[in-house]
Amino acid sequence: MPEKKEDKIPPYYEVYRLARQQEEKGYSVIHLEYGDPDIPTDPRIIDEMSLKALEGYTHYSNPLGLDELREKIAENMSLRLRTDISRDNVIVTIGSKSAIYISLRAFYQPRKSVLLISPIWGLYHTLLKEMGIDYVNYKTRMEDGWSPTDDLFDIRRSVGIIMVNNPNNPTSKVWDNKSIKTIIDFARENNAVIISDEVYHDFSRKKFYSMLSYDYDKVICLYSFSKSYSMTGFRLGYIISPNNELLSKFAKLQQLYFTNVPVFIQYAGLKALEMPWIAVENIRILWRNTDFMSRGLKKMGMSFLRPEGAFYIFMKIPEKYNNSYRFCYDLLVKENLCFAPGEGFGGYDNFVRVSASLNIEKLRLALKRLERFLGDS
Amino acid sequence: MPEKKEDKIPPYYEVYRLARQQEEKGYSVIHLEYGDPDIPTDPRIIDEMSLKALEGYTHYSNPLGLDELREKIAENMSLRLRTDISRDNVIVTIGSKSAIYISLRAFYQPRKSVLLISPIWGLYHTLLKEMGIDYVNYKTRMEDGWSPTDDLFDIRRSVGIIMVNNPNNPTSKVWDNKSIKTIIDFARENNAVIISDEVYHDFSRKKFYSMLSYDYDKVICLYSFSKSYSMTGFRLGYIISPNNELLSKFAKLQQLYFTNVPVFIQYAGLKALEMPWIAVENIRILWRNTDFMSRGLKKMGMSFLRPEGAFYIFMKIPEKYNNSYRFCYDLLVKENLCFAPGEGFGGYDNFVRVSASLNIEKLRLALKRLERFLGDS
Repeated sequence: MPEKKEDKIPPYYEVYRLARQQEEKGYSVIHLEYGDPDIPTDPRIIDEMSLKALEGYTHYSNPLGLDELREKIAENMSLRLRTDISRDNVIVTIGSKSAIYISLRAFYQPRKSVLLISPIWGLYHTLLKEMGIDYVNYKTRMEDGWSPTDDLFDIRRSVGIIMVNNPNNPTSKVWDNKSIKTIIDFARENNAVIISDEVYHDFSRKKFYSMLSYDYDKVICLYSFSKSYSMTGFRLGYIISPNNELLSKFAKLQQLYFTNVPVFIQYAGLKALEMPWIAVENIRILWRNTDFMSRGLKKMGMSFLRPEGAFYIFMKIPEKYNNSYRFCYDLLVKENLCFAPGEGFGGYDNFVRVSASLNIEKLRLALKRLERFLGDS
Repeated sequence: MPEKKEDKIPPYYEVYRLARQQEEKGYSVIHLEYGDPDIPTDPRIIDEMSLKALEGYTHYSNPLGLDELREKIAENMSLRLRTDISRDNVIVTIGSKSAIYISLRAFYQPRKSVLLISPIWGLYHTLLKEMGIDYVNYKTRMEDGWSPTDDLFDIRRSVGIIMVNNPNNPTSKVWDNKSIKTIIDFARENNAVIISDEVYHDFSRKKFYSMLSYDYDKVICLYSFSKSYSMTGFRLGYIISPNNELLSKFAKLQQLYFTNVPVFIQYAGLKALEMPWIAVENIRILWRNTDFMSRGLKKMGMSFLRPEGAFYIFMKIPEKYNNSYRFCYDLLVKENLCFAPGEGFGGYDNFVRVSASLNIEKLRLALKRLERFLGDS
């Protein structure tokens, strides 16, 4: 159901501010509002970084990224996605946040709209609002399995950019072939650029279809080392596109804004890719945590779709709350437990996102606190 | 002399591309076109980074930067500039490039002009052109000691942002009190924000006046660990401002675009600041190199003002060349020596910038190549 963006400023930042205030008062807050796995980064990755810095890789470098790393990424992703990717299709980025911003700056056309398929990570909404871009917020529904339907074609505005996130944050949905095709058909009709955030692809528990695997080339896909290698603080990501024109527009801006990602960090990423079993093990831990959390929440009667990728649970809040911010606020004040309000993901005000990125002990405690809160309230 | 910007695309990027081509052909190019000191980063700085990463500082963090680092920066700069700076006046940035971009995005007002005091690092010109901002290019002259004069007040357009770079890249000029006052008076008249790039302040050989030391608070100053600690590849810088409104606008955008600078890199910066003698020693080396290069160029009869800060020499090219790009191109093709064309610093087409950031052996070789080139041509 297409819908115009709301103009009000999202209040969910308030929740994070409040969480910090609670901590300053000495309370021990459980942070399930963001996705920062508490698994340590493998020390071999850190040692490699240190070694390369000592070897003298402490200078300016190619803004596209290290050739060896781009080569390795291309090789890996070619196998993973069963499609032909070469080094020249890859640009190394500062996390995926900067890549989203640069993509918007590079591909935005003033007389065309941007389309967001919601729910989607809150940053997209905040960023578009800050940039003063009037966008179309297309909202998928839990009843439709969080998938786009043919009413996508009811959008009558001319769309220049489509932003999607699959596997999805916050629903952990992995779209099937049909959903992806629907989006590509719509893109083709509009001759639009698809910015496809696929940072959680490693976490898929069913067949994953990348936007790169179709014969539509106005596509740029975003990936990151953050989650599967537990390297959030390294700020290391990459984009892949089959389209040279898109890549060169992106590269030009990235060079102007930041020079390059520190070379020793890129070597850390290369080392990570040489030890794929680390990602496998981390993903296994996060799946287990997600399952643990899902079972606990189901037992309490919470309503959500089973996560298929990523480690988030996007669940309905009790009916007497119709304001996700209020729910999170009360939960935080009463129980020092922090969730992310659904309002921030594109106006889902009767949902909250629960991140299962912390260890089982913390998750167990979180479930207890939630249970008490629901019983009391 | 105020002057409207030229519309043509700067051709100096071609020089860098050509330098890479020469290297791919197997030639050994001497790179004096950029300022990346070849002094190794002190290993204790690298060890600290590695230690902190192993200790688990590999997560998302405060987008303003680490409290301890901001505290230390505030303490240092308060002493250095003899002015009162607190932690809350400091934001840690990804190098100074991203800080320039974010400042422009944060403070630009559509109906007001941006003023550049040229010559100035080419990035400023390229960035403003890319952003589609029509700016005023005020050109200082060698005859005026590369200082602004009262004709600054002939600018009749309403100016919202003034961008300056002091000590200056490319001239290595350090402005005196009177020059700074002229700029501040002009800013006051326009109620403009001053973005003052002071990354070379450590290199001043005479009294340095920071924009922070005057009673005008619409000022944001940019600093970096890159040059004095030989940490270009770490991408670590910071801004200081006395103005809370400016700081909070800046912080908001930085958080949206990049999250934060890797925490272990911030700890590396903190370690560096605890060993200020490293900067002193590096600066001494770079001064010596700059003097060596200056003497050599003077002997050849080149015309330039003695560098007072930074390690750049901005010199006139022989009269028969009236095109700095052509000069650099020929020098590169014939002698594999690379300078930066003056055109890129704001339209100084009879100048080139020579960076003395490499070691004496390379500089000696560079002088020989230049001498042969000038004799031949």
